[in-house]
Amino acid sequence: MTDDVYAVDVAVRYQDVDALGHVNNAIYATYLEEARVQYLPDVLGDTGAIEAVLANLEIDYRRPVTLEDGFVTVEIEVVDVGTKSVTFEYEVYASGDLAAEASTVQVAYDGETQESVEIPEEWRQTLREFEGLN
Amino acid sequence: MTDDVYAVDVAVRYQDVDALGHVNNAIYATYLEEARVQYLPDVLGDTGAIEAVLANLEIDYRRPVTLEDGFVTVEIEVVDVGTKSVTFEYEVYASGDLAAEASTVQVAYDGETQESVEIPEEWRQTLREFEGLN
Amino acid sequence: MTDDVYAVDVAVRYQDVDALGHVNNAIYATYLEEARVQYLPDVLGDTGAIEAVLANLEIDYRRPVTLEDGFVTVEIEVVDVGTKSVTFEYEVYASGDLAAEASTVQVAYDGETQESVEIPEEWRQTLREFEGLN
Amino acid sequence: MTDDVYAVDVAVRYQDVDALGHVNNAIYATYLEEARVQYLPDVLGDTGAIEAVLANLEIDYRRPVTLEDGFVTVEIEVVDVGTKSVTFEYEVYASGDLAAEASTVQVAYDGETQESVEIPEEWRQTLREFEGLN
Repeated sequence: MTDDVYAVDVAVRYQDVDALGHVNNAIYATYLEEARVQYLPDVLGDTGAIEAVLANLEIDYRRPVTLEDGFVTVEIEVVDVGTKSVTFEYEVYASGDLAAEASTVQVAYDGETQESVEIPEEWRQTLREFEGLN
Repeated sequence: MTDDVYAVDVAVRYQDVDALGHVNNAIYATYLEEARVQYLPDVLGDTGAIEAVLANLEIDYRRPVTLEDGFVTVEIEVVDVGTKSVTFEYEVYASGDLAAEASTVQVAYDGETQESVEIPEEWRQTLREFEGLN
Repeated sequence: MTDDVYAVDVAVRYQDVDALGHVNNAIYATYLEEARVQYLPDVLGDTGAIEAVLANLEIDYRRPVTLEDGFVTVEIEVVDVGTKSVTFEYEVYASGDLAAEASTVQVAYDGETQESVEIPEEWRQTLREFEGLN
Repeated sequence: MTDDVYAVDVAVRYQDVDALGHVNNAIYATYLEEARVQYLPDVLGDTGAIEAVLANLEIDYRRPVTLEDGFVTVEIEVVDVGTKSVTFEYEVYASGDLAAEASTVQVAYDGETQESVEIPEEWRQTLREFEGLN
């Protein structure tokens, strides 16, 4: 794990585990989401009617997560801020092991008009500053 | 949608929809899984203790799926069969629209020894024949 | 199973099954919900901003449901219509066996004011007629 | 909330919330389960192949839980220990409010023979002592 990276602990629930005894693959997307829904209001503040919706998701599964792990730590980082999209990268740790690497691309979405919009300039600036991007 | 592609209909559940009124991003991974768990025994027959577990997942979200869509149709295809992994591609349709494109890489896993194993030669042959790969 | 009872088939998903190999207890509540969200608009038509929210849920688990069952059939019936609440009873069948019996009490809720309201008289009448209650 | 009652905090996930903006009714059963799967090994120790499976579930919903609550506190108590079943009662609190009251009846199940068994005498004694029942 890395110092100075935004990190969120997510408890593993009994129901996250499927018939093989491992956390189901789809639940990893939920773990990433938990990190993101904590990161975004924390870094951006109240974003009003503008929501960040998912355009792309990629997950590399490195080792199974089980109930015995108790929780995972999701490290989350914005690595690219464009006009229309923001790219996040994640590392998911369980009991100190890298359990998954992932990335997502979010686009901004106006919940009132129900349409994609440009990433507000204020978000772009705040995210770049928070992450030390130029 | 394409003719002659293996396709599975998955009903959209009320609980699949999140606070934005759209099917949650993680649920798409479940829709893909529903297609896969139908395709695999159907094409490969009983695979005994060997399970196919997920090594990589990628989803491109094209348009939101809502309750009104009722169900999605997941087209699933094996596009590559290697020594250690099998690559699937998917198209998810809702009300005739392409709602998502996706791919997964599966590896074979022995549920008894709990270790990765080579893709059994019999699977490789059966999958290649079914998909017309050489 | 009973003739002339409103019934909804719900496909069992791979992810519904937990580490014991049985459909998880919480998922039964989702199966009931699937029956309810089909019954209500079907019988009542468009109910506008008024939603039926759950006040009470009771489930008796009779036998485990597994992936092999493929789907469950949920029989749903309104057995009581009061001023402030509607009582549903359910029987959940898997492969012809009674897998669970359940009941729920719904109250009407105005999504705009976010408050409980009386069951609209029109709903009461329609539900009583549909179910042959007096 | 009550002193000296076994209590478990469960974080509310974004995906727990449904289209109405409230935690979905089925998720409450998952919150109860999270309390139970922590209580049981904690109080009973390693129970080997014997698992506690659900025979009955009842939930009274008192007020909606939302994302803003952040987490719920589930108070869990064994109130009756019989030859064949154990009865739990729960109170679920959100932001200090009683959000739900619930009860479950568990029976003992032998994961190897896949059959119900009597509650082991050792469990009965340990649970009665822990809860001060006679």
